[in-house]
Amino acid sequence: MIRTIWWQDNQVQMIDQRALPGEELTVSCRDYREVIRCIRDLTIRGAPAIGVAAALGIALGMRGLDGADAGETDAEFEKLCIGFAQARPTARNLFWAIERMKTCYMKLGRAPLRERQEVLLAEALAIREEDIANCMLLGRHGQGLISDGANVLTYCNAGALATAGYGTALGVIRAAREAGKTIHVYACETRPVLQGARLTAWELVKEGIAATLITDNMAGWIMSQGKVDCVLVGADRIAANGDVANKVGTYSLAVLAREHHVPFYVAAPLSTLDLQTSCGGEITIEERQPEEVLSLHGKRTAPEGIGVYNPAFDITPWRFVTAIITERGIVRPDYSHTLPALRDR
Amino acid sequence: MIRTIWWQDNQVQMIDQRALPGEELTVSCRDYREVIRCIRDLTIRGAPAIGVAAALGIALGMRGLDGADAGETDAEFEKLCIGFAQARPTARNLFWAIERMKTCYMKLGRAPLRERQEVLLAEALAIREEDIANCMLLGRHGQGLISDGANVLTYCNAGALATAGYGTALGVIRAAREAGKTIHVYACETRPVLQGARLTAWELVKEGIAATLITDNMAGWIMSQGKVDCVLVGADRIAANGDVANKVGTYSLAVLAREHHVPFYVAAPLSTLDLQTSCGGEITIEERQPEEVLSLHGKRTAPEGIGVYNPAFDITPWRFVTAIITERGIVRPDYSHTLPALRDR
Repeated sequence: MIRTIWWQDNQVQMIDQRALPGEELTVSCRDYREVIRCIRDLTIRGAPAIGVAAALGIALGMRGLDGADAGETDAEFEKLCIGFAQARPTARNLFWAIERMKTCYMKLGRAPLRERQEVLLAEALAIREEDIANCMLLGRHGQGLISDGANVLTYCNAGALATAGYGTALGVIRAAREAGKTIHVYACETRPVLQGARLTAWELVKEGIAATLITDNMAGWIMSQGKVDCVLVGADRIAANGDVANKVGTYSLAVLAREHHVPFYVAAPLSTLDLQTSCGGEITIEERQPEEVLSLHGKRTAPEGIGVYNPAFDITPWRFVTAIITERGIVRPDYSHTLPALRDR
Repeated sequence: MIRTIWWQDNQVQMIDQRALPGEELTVSCRDYREVIRCIRDLTIRGAPAIGVAAALGIALGMRGLDGADAGETDAEFEKLCIGFAQARPTARNLFWAIERMKTCYMKLGRAPLRERQEVLLAEALAIREEDIANCMLLGRHGQGLISDGANVLTYCNAGALATAGYGTALGVIRAAREAGKTIHVYACETRPVLQGARLTAWELVKEGIAATLITDNMAGWIMSQGKVDCVLVGADRIAANGDVANKVGTYSLAVLAREHHVPFYVAAPLSTLDLQTSCGGEITIEERQPEEVLSLHGKRTAPEGIGVYNPAFDITPWRFVTAIITERGIVRPDYSHTLPALRDR
């Protein structure tokens, strides 16, 4: 099983996703600031995975406080939480994990520092374990939607690497396979950072799942040829009405899926759900550096002087989403009723 | 003005489009086989441009026949035509140019070899000149569709570099600008060969036209934000019913344009029109090497063992095409009536 992020030797360790698929390197963080940098520079990415990274990073940061008094500890904890919250803006799981660490910290009251450190680390490790367990549950629910012999189109990387392990969209595919089904995956390369070509393709080859890589612009054409039975993607944030923020390009796929009467499924744990945000229009969309679009492998592809627009995410309105697959089951529209009911299930 | 391909010093000369935008290099072909290789390896690309390349290449090939008798000359001419016809399968203009050279050759009857050589070269040069003139005419017709201040989304490169000069889709934008309009262009990078990022962006920067480069998967998202007033693309082949073969990804843009009530325009000279082909389903779609998708700048992006599907073109059904802009004017559906009428205009 692919391990994305773990705690070892009092360090946060993670696979370096920038180096994949060429090299399988581990990055070891002894300082929480290194974890923040890893989130920012996409050493680790994927909404559930960066939630786990923030939790482990906060636990790591707290371990550096030996000797601090209660007031200093509170201030440092607050600083840690702010630091991680500023790492990236869109993925709900990042803020969810920080809130959960905060709740844990509050419950600790005036406990000794050593105890706080241990309990916060245990909480972060629990978040990590639950993430894997939720992906497996979600996969088991979702795989019922995938027929034996299906051609599934996926986007970006919603795999083991986007979570603590097993994956959301790829978790559903793994579960379908474990249920004895034969699945063929179309992986969109996902420009500009190529998470599909680099990460999803790597996971699928590693698992021996039949897969075909396409450029993002081919998706409509293969759908029109009847080659796609469903689209299955992850999510970075899901609003209360079911609007989905996910890697830029997801919205285009959703429009194309509807045009071709292809079901469009979103797989995400409840930690991606943001019931405080009423609709997609309220979600902050991160814009990243133009260099991601202008250069590849450090070599310029576009001329000097050209403008660039580089949003990392887009919003898919709920009406394009056939179903949302979670660890508590599958919901369908009207999401403004079915999503809150799921949380309380 | 950007020169794409020309005749100089008894050679076919062209700008090396593989080297752009980093380097502006000229490739000089002394042998027609080099011209065929340049078409195959995308040193020159764009349907009208490769038509001109074939015509000049055939003229070049004929100049190598000094001393051949009439029978040998006929056989060599035939061989040349077959060689160019096999260079690439989809662009109609390639076959159109070969047919025009054949017609010219037939008319020459038993003329002396030297005369045939001269007349064929003159014909090839006329094809080149007419291509530029047609682009300018087409641009003048089409620019009426573009409002002052418009945001135009274009795809691949349908510019000066895709023709002998001036361009089809970019010809319309150039003409709109010459008519005093301010235009902003969204250029899709156009994976896998990046003709948008490398060539269209280069032309637009050179002309001082305001332009923003996006990855192909962002098109739907910017349309949903109301940032696109029209989509304007070129074509590689247009069937009698108005179905359009163009760079893969065009079809997705057409679906997205319709979803957002954005007009979708195709700009192409009549040499792209194929009235013998009744619909898009009859058009041969070239599939190119997987390496185009798997690697960038000679460095692998995807893992070993992943499958690849790499069609170079797709078909946009006529019902998605708001209008087709040609040198004889603008036509709208029902294309099965309006396109043949245009030819006879």
